[in-house]
Amino acid sequence: MSSATRSEAALSRIRVVLVRTTHPGNIGAAARAMLTMGLSRLVLVAPSHFPHPDADAMATGAAGVLARARVVDDLTQALAGCALTVGLSARPRAFAGRVLCARDAAGEAVARTSEGDVALVFGTEMSGLSNEELALCGIAATIPANPGYASLNLAAAVQVMAYETRLAAGDGSVWRAPRFAPATHDEVEALYAHAGETLQAMRFLNPAHPKRLMPRLRRLFGRAGLEREEVNILRGILARIDQFTGRKGR
Amino acid sequence: MSSATRSEAALSRIRVVLVRTTHPGNIGAAARAMLTMGLSRLVLVAPSHFPHPDADAMATGAAGVLARARVVDDLTQALAGCALTVGLSARPRAFAGRVLCARDAAGEAVARTSEGDVALVFGTEMSGLSNEELALCGIAATIPANPGYASLNLAAAVQVMAYETRLAAGDGSVWRAPRFAPATHDEVEALYAHAGETLQAMRFLNPAHPKRLMPRLRRLFGRAGLEREEVNILRGILARIDQFTGRKGR
Repeated sequence: MSSATRSEAALSRIRVVLVRTTHPGNIGAAARAMLTMGLSRLVLVAPSHFPHPDADAMATGAAGVLARARVVDDLTQALAGCALTVGLSARPRAFAGRVLCARDAAGEAVARTSEGDVALVFGTEMSGLSNEELALCGIAATIPANPGYASLNLAAAVQVMAYETRLAAGDGSVWRAPRFAPATHDEVEALYAHAGETLQAMRFLNPAHPKRLMPRLRRLFGRAGLEREEVNILRGILARIDQFTGRKGR
Repeated sequence: MSSATRSEAALSRIRVVLVRTTHPGNIGAAARAMLTMGLSRLVLVAPSHFPHPDADAMATGAAGVLARARVVDDLTQALAGCALTVGLSARPRAFAGRVLCARDAAGEAVARTSEGDVALVFGTEMSGLSNEELALCGIAATIPANPGYASLNLAAAVQVMAYETRLAAGDGSVWRAPRFAPATHDEVEALYAHAGETLQAMRFLNPAHPKRLMPRLRRLFGRAGLEREEVNILRGILARIDQFTGRKGR
């Protein structure tokens, strides 16, 4: 099984459970947040309003996640069959068992998908999970936040946990800067030789007092890692300068 | 300087720049996302509508971030004086220089606050930063996402970057499970001794064929890490069972 397939298999075993969500727009925004990270199994426990046009509007391209969402009456039904249940809470609780930060909880969630389904459980907007609801979860997870204002929007919290889950599943790949043909050592050295002569002809570089000009230029272009096309452009510029100074090209 | 103060100092040097935002609600949601992670400097480049009641509604407790937001006409003004500028882009670009994933970009952003202000730049909702806008940024950053649906809501993208920035600044602290007095070694051994006798009196443990019962119980309670109060509760339960079996307490 390829690494991408393994990662998809792990993500396909993760349910996002939203408990007693008040605003249907948040359900739609949560569905969108999930799908951007490759999660698609949504369970709604006693939502105030669902289905609802606000949910559809906020889901944008994640309408399919809403269409397949399961609606249940209580949290016990939502968690049935899970190998691990993770309850999110911003508030400290007097009777919590294990409490992990979001990143560690995501790592554990993905690891436990080898044993079965895993639920990420989010409480109602105003007050989060009740103590009774959190007690049904195997571990508590919390997103590091500003202690002066730790009030993440529900869909924002889903976004952060889904993001950490995707990375924990090993699919943190991103687009890369385009790669063009690098210049060879010889091409780069010819550039420096040309530049040295042009700068002398311009009377910017004095061979009797060269100071640190050429080492500084080598350091700058060395850091950038020159491509062949870039060497050609720079030599074109030098050749044009040479026409003004009367230096003969080699 | 304490670690918390150092972290706050780094976060105070980070600007979030939103370019040509269309929906004022997204500006408010972004302000809320920022403040939950301890960021408070918002710069708006040519927003379609600002100030606006939708922005206020979505900001909830982060109204102060909106009140102090700076509104400018173009991106160049927004980036003036920055030591590093980071442009977010979900789309690959043919002419990008350095491209980092969100986590690495956040690490670099925080590191560079020692040299001056750092800007995190987010484009317009529908199409993101233009090539010309991204070219004004020193590095490009991208949030790992589902290649089939990488469309994070603007405020959700701000939330993820702000979260990574907070963690990169070293303030990933979270609430911890409460700690109660642990049981001593002697108390735990007395519990196992009591349990062994009670289980014999119940005829659940046969000393002639003990199998692996006691080692399994030791393993279970060892993993949990018993507290003193828990040992007292368990011994209370054992003593109650002893009343039924007629076993004399020690």
